[in-house]
Amino acid sequence: MQRAQWVEQRKNDEIRTQMYYARRGVITEEMEYVARREQLTPETVRDEVARGRMIIPANINHLSLEPMAIGVAAKCKINSNIGNSSTTSDISGELEKLTASVKYGADTVMDLSTGGDIPAIRKAIIQASPVPIGTVPIYEALSRVRRIEDLNAAVMLEVIEEQAEQGVDYMTIHAGVLVQHIPLTTKRVCGIVSRGGSILAEWMVKNHKQNFLYENFEAICKIFQKHDVSFSLGDGLRPGALADASDEAQFAELKTLGELTRIAWNYDVQVMIEGPGHIPMDQIQMQVEKEKELCYEAPFYTLGPLVTDFAPGYDHITSAIGAAMIGWYGASMLCYVTPKEHLGLPNKDDVKAGLIAYKIAAHAADIARKRPGARDRDDELSRARYRFDWKKQFELSLDPETAQAYHDETLPEDGFKDAHFCSMCGPKFCAYNISSKVEDFTAEEAQSVLDGKKNDDLVNIAGD
Amino acid sequence: MQRAQWVEQRKNDEIRTQMYYARRGVITEEMEYVARREQLTPETVRDEVARGRMIIPANINHLSLEPMAIGVAAKCKINSNIGNSSTTSDISGELEKLTASVKYGADTVMDLSTGGDIPAIRKAIIQASPVPIGTVPIYEALSRVRRIEDLNAAVMLEVIEEQAEQGVDYMTIHAGVLVQHIPLTTKRVCGIVSRGGSILAEWMVKNHKQNFLYENFEAICKIFQKHDVSFSLGDGLRPGALADASDEAQFAELKTLGELTRIAWNYDVQVMIEGPGHIPMDQIQMQVEKEKELCYEAPFYTLGPLVTDFAPGYDHITSAIGAAMIGWYGASMLCYVTPKEHLGLPNKDDVKAGLIAYKIAAHAADIARKRPGARDRDDELSRARYRFDWKKQFELSLDPETAQAYHDETLPEDGFKDAHFCSMCGPKFCAYNISSKVEDFTAEEAQSVLDGKKNDDLVNIAGD
Repeated sequence: MQRAQWVEQRKNDEIRTQMYYARRGVITEEMEYVARREQLTPETVRDEVARGRMIIPANINHLSLEPMAIGVAAKCKINSNIGNSSTTSDISGELEKLTASVKYGADTVMDLSTGGDIPAIRKAIIQASPVPIGTVPIYEALSRVRRIEDLNAAVMLEVIEEQAEQGVDYMTIHAGVLVQHIPLTTKRVCGIVSRGGSILAEWMVKNHKQNFLYENFEAICKIFQKHDVSFSLGDGLRPGALADASDEAQFAELKTLGELTRIAWNYDVQVMIEGPGHIPMDQIQMQVEKEKELCYEAPFYTLGPLVTDFAPGYDHITSAIGAAMIGWYGASMLCYVTPKEHLGLPNKDDVKAGLIAYKIAAHAADIARKRPGARDRDDELSRARYRFDWKKQFELSLDPETAQAYHDETLPEDGFKDAHFCSMCGPKFCAYNISSKVEDFTAEEAQSVLDGKKNDDLVNIAGD
Repeated sequence: MQRAQWVEQRKNDEIRTQMYYARRGVITEEMEYVARREQLTPETVRDEVARGRMIIPANINHLSLEPMAIGVAAKCKINSNIGNSSTTSDISGELEKLTASVKYGADTVMDLSTGGDIPAIRKAIIQASPVPIGTVPIYEALSRVRRIEDLNAAVMLEVIEEQAEQGVDYMTIHAGVLVQHIPLTTKRVCGIVSRGGSILAEWMVKNHKQNFLYENFEAICKIFQKHDVSFSLGDGLRPGALADASDEAQFAELKTLGELTRIAWNYDVQVMIEGPGHIPMDQIQMQVEKEKELCYEAPFYTLGPLVTDFAPGYDHITSAIGAAMIGWYGASMLCYVTPKEHLGLPNKDDVKAGLIAYKIAAHAADIARKRPGARDRDDELSRARYRFDWKKQFELSLDPETAQAYHDETLPEDGFKDAHFCSMCGPKFCAYNISSKVEDFTAEEAQSVLDGKKNDDLVNIAGD
């Protein structure tokens, strides 16, 4: 395997993070690989990684990885969350979700398992995955203690080290939820909606102490540096309702995440910043600007945001609207939301529905930001559409099976694959079909009509 | 029926359009009705209608109508398109789509039937409909002639008059596609994608004449004035691909629509302006500004826009993104797009999927524009969510059956309707559940933790 060689040849280097090399002017094989995928120069990738504006989440122990980049210079990415809960799912179910995630275009996958044999599920997922795997280690740490208040730095660092050795590429660490932020959340409509954030809040309140992840942040940096694990600095206080958007609690934590970014960068450890949540459309651009300012342009990795709170069952759509917009404004990765959000654990079909909605959002963002080649596939599909080349049209579609199935529902016979119409308008009313008949009409002919208007023999019914 | 009385008492008035009364300072019963629905004062409604910035599509012959308004001061509206094509559907199928449309929140419905007994289908739809009905009369006109080039003003005015007498509330009239615009479309990737626009283009090219709807526009105004039919000035040259967005052809037609708006207003006839289509996110705001400027702020009624061209089968989502944004920027009504767009005639399920996506888009726009009361339902649902009041949460949902079905898929037993968790996280990891435990933590307690930090007995693993 290619990546094994790349990692092997660096084994004697003191530090082996992508950021370390980038800052020393070295272009790694991973950076070259990423540059090809992104239609960027290797130098641009190196400079962006050095500057902290792009990350290549690539644990040195994840040898099946096909490296990818998250950053505003690269295409907008999407993440799929899989993982079981104590009430539902098992290893084979999670591997199915991984396969579906990669098939429908997930750029990274987070394993959020909170029940069953967490390390075994994760091991299977990492081995099978060409995309970076992220985790939230506090879930496993919590499984090793009796109560939330029994959590401590020792068990957390133990879990982080084990996961890093397994090859986890990035980890969500909620080190920015501070004890002084908690009172800012108590008047919210929805309180604290991040699982990690709520766990730490309860821990701080019960133990009457500052967040132990904040207090031990440099110890975490050292483990991350050793394996090149990237931080996904968790937004434990993200708003969970439109009513709580852009409040003091949210931005107090964001400011802390900025401070922690600086510390991680001192260790040459890569960082991205997690973001909301539930945000009305008119506040989305401001959210991105605030993150850039407070977190020194570290890549922004957002969950949605949802732009309404009244449509459970359709939150892949409510959030795809916010996701497309935040991607256009500058977020680098969009964490998908499935139709089951707020209602239950997603199954394979929900994973697909969430991914499709988010591929659309990320692609719309790439088009609006005019990233190189972003619109090529759309234009090619539009040309096939105008030519009535149905087969090509299906082939270029995001989900060819569904596109063809919908077409064939009313006109299944193979002859209709060359037909100059579909069942929407029928042959007489097909605009493309009619439009092709005026293609040779010139400006000169139009002018001659205008010049000849006085001799027009058209009956003018307006009359009087 | 209420409306019959309202109309009856005006029978001796020379002109009976809502705009006529508004301009003379009269507040009609329809305006009062609309004001209550919109939480606006009757005077605001009257002034907006007088100014042409709001319309109340209300044919004096549509007696089952519950009046509604389309305009930037009112809530953002959505339209559902129903109607058969020559290959598919019948009266009962169309009435099913009407019922589904009204159930899932369509504010107006357009009957775009192009096959079968068009007048009979329309009659059944108008009688059954509490919402305004729109049509595109050129479809029926075309059914009365042999070939496109045989269309003429006489048959068109005949159809318009008949439909107006039946009670159609607004009609799409493609009077802005001029012969001099056609050469501007011939280099497009997707040519002319509006059915009406392509029919008129072929007519002009074959007959070597100017658009007969433009030439006879005042005759149409007179019929509209008599029955209070509103214009939906059709965008026959709307872009049908991202590649064709915001081009010269599109804006040349838009300018003509502005001229026609002035003429209609001279007859006290209400007007809205149809808009795109396929537009990348970064051009959406400009599209709205251009329309306001060129069409004197007449309400903007847009189809989507779609923000990518690569996802046939999911164009309800690609277009809901654009629709939410254009609604936020100032469009007054959003014409829905179903998953079958570009692929075939939608069925009842597709109509529902399109409507749900567009209710989300319109609602997101109302929230972002801060329309009065727009977020009340969202906030109430968020409070129910935080309280684990699952039944209330379902009840407040846009689609209660689906929300409950998704929840019950993994936790069907009735006892779980009061459970303080769902299958997404399970009981131990439910953030709401945990978050409620820190609700009484005060700023003073937080400060005491910070003050006591030096005596902290926490083991600091970072150590050195």
